[in-house]
Amino acid sequence: LNGDFRWKKQCLNKLDLSKKGSVDEDITHVVSLLNSCEEFFTTSSCSGRIILIDGVRDACEVQKQNCVWLFVSHQKCTSDESNGDAVFKFEPFVLHVQCRQLDDAQLVHSVAINSGFRNSGLTVSKTGKIMTAVRSTHGLEVPLSNEGKVLVEEEYIHFLTRIANQKIEENLRRIQRSVPICLLLKKGEETTEQEEKNKPSVYQRRRKREKPSVTDCCHGDGSSIVPELDDCLDLFT
Amino acid sequence: LNGDFRWKKQCLNKLDLSKKGSVDEDITHVVSLLNSCEEFFTTSSCSGRIILIDGVRDACEVQKQNCVWLFVSHQKCTSDESNGDAVFKFEPFVLHVQCRQLDDAQLVHSVAINSGFRNSGLTVSKTGKIMTAVRSTHGLEVPLSNEGKVLVEEEYIHFLTRIANQKIEENLRRIQRSVPICLLLKKGEETTEQEEKNKPSVYQRRRKREKPSVTDCCHGDGSSIVPELDDCLDLFT
Repeated sequence: LNGDFRWKKQCLNKLDLSKKGSVDEDITHVVSLLNSCEEFFTTSSCSGRIILIDGVRDACEVQKQNCVWLFVSHQKCTSDESNGDAVFKFEPFVLHVQCRQLDDAQLVHSVAINSGFRNSGLTVSKTGKIMTAVRSTHGLEVPLSNEGKVLVEEEYIHFLTRIANQKIEENLRRIQRSVPICLLLKKGEETTEQEEKNKPSVYQRRRKREKPSVTDCCHGDGSSIVPELDDCLDLFT
Repeated sequence: LNGDFRWKKQCLNKLDLSKKGSVDEDITHVVSLLNSCEEFFTTSSCSGRIILIDGVRDACEVQKQNCVWLFVSHQKCTSDESNGDAVFKFEPFVLHVQCRQLDDAQLVHSVAINSGFRNSGLTVSKTGKIMTAVRSTHGLEVPLSNEGKVLVEEEYIHFLTRIANQKIEENLRRIQRSVPICLLLKKGEETTEQEEKNKPSVYQRRRKREKPSVTDCCHGDGSSIVPELDDCLDLFT
């Protein structure tokens, strides 16, 4: 093992920290792609999910659904069995990528922004650990019951399910959008491996790369909460 | 003006980029505190709000309410006048702070995490502009109508309003929680001004500071999406 891989090897046994114990099927290709680059490895992930939680019972998870179509047959949370405050949620794709250097993290961040994950951001820890969190603005959080009393009609639940499924589909489109850009990361890594030692700034290095296809980055919540968006997009030009 | 202030002066006319054109009342003290430190200035902010949007009409904003108690008398979005897909939303506090150096941004990030804003993160732009985005996990997004047809009862709207008001109150508590920690930033700045030139790492410098009161950082969505939390908390110890 050379030095390039040493930092990664140290953490390989931490690769999957999610409760579920494995990477969700819809994102295994993205996670594998990132983990095949020596600059990155993922530490936790969720492909996106529809969940029913019961507010009173310590917000514990009653249902976890990565599947688009199964929800209707599992709506136990709205039945009389619930004594608490049931909440229907859609939570989009989330991914944490540990990065070797700050410019690597910036690159993952720009991939995320380009793919439509506008709430993404970096974390630099006390020990110098650099992490990019990929997050979306795309959510849904709907209270369904209050102290066991269901406050909505069955028709509304069906409507919600349809909305949540649409959001899951959009979520998957964004994940797919990130794949070709991740491939550019991988490609860039291969072509620049020789010049790694005395590399110029990340921006000069990235300029050599192919420009990705233009993506719809503004399909978020419409607010201007990412003032750095243009700068991030420029990373690849 | 010395060099320390030059970078800040260049951007002072950009201080308030929000559509509204002014800083929301509930956060003027936090915004002022940050802007009184030479390392930081805020570029956009929202104290948190309850809004009704109409999905079909380009997701434009129909109502903006920073006030906790006025919502019920403004629920126009659920009337027959809406032809679209009305959505009731609570959006928590969001703040963008431009920072002079990376360790300044880390510090703002740790203040945010300590105050309960767990989806906060850094952005480093192509031009080297460093920004901390303060974001919460605390939201609410409830579809109310479909193609003009209202799908929920009036009782449910009242329930939603109550939930949204509770979330606004929790949101304000988190904002208040950040004030004493921001004061430590300010205090730290004054005491370390002399040693600024050849300062040690941010962590050594911060260790000299007072430890803030322990805060409930896990009062979020309960998921483990911030693996760096412990590291961030340690920044102040």
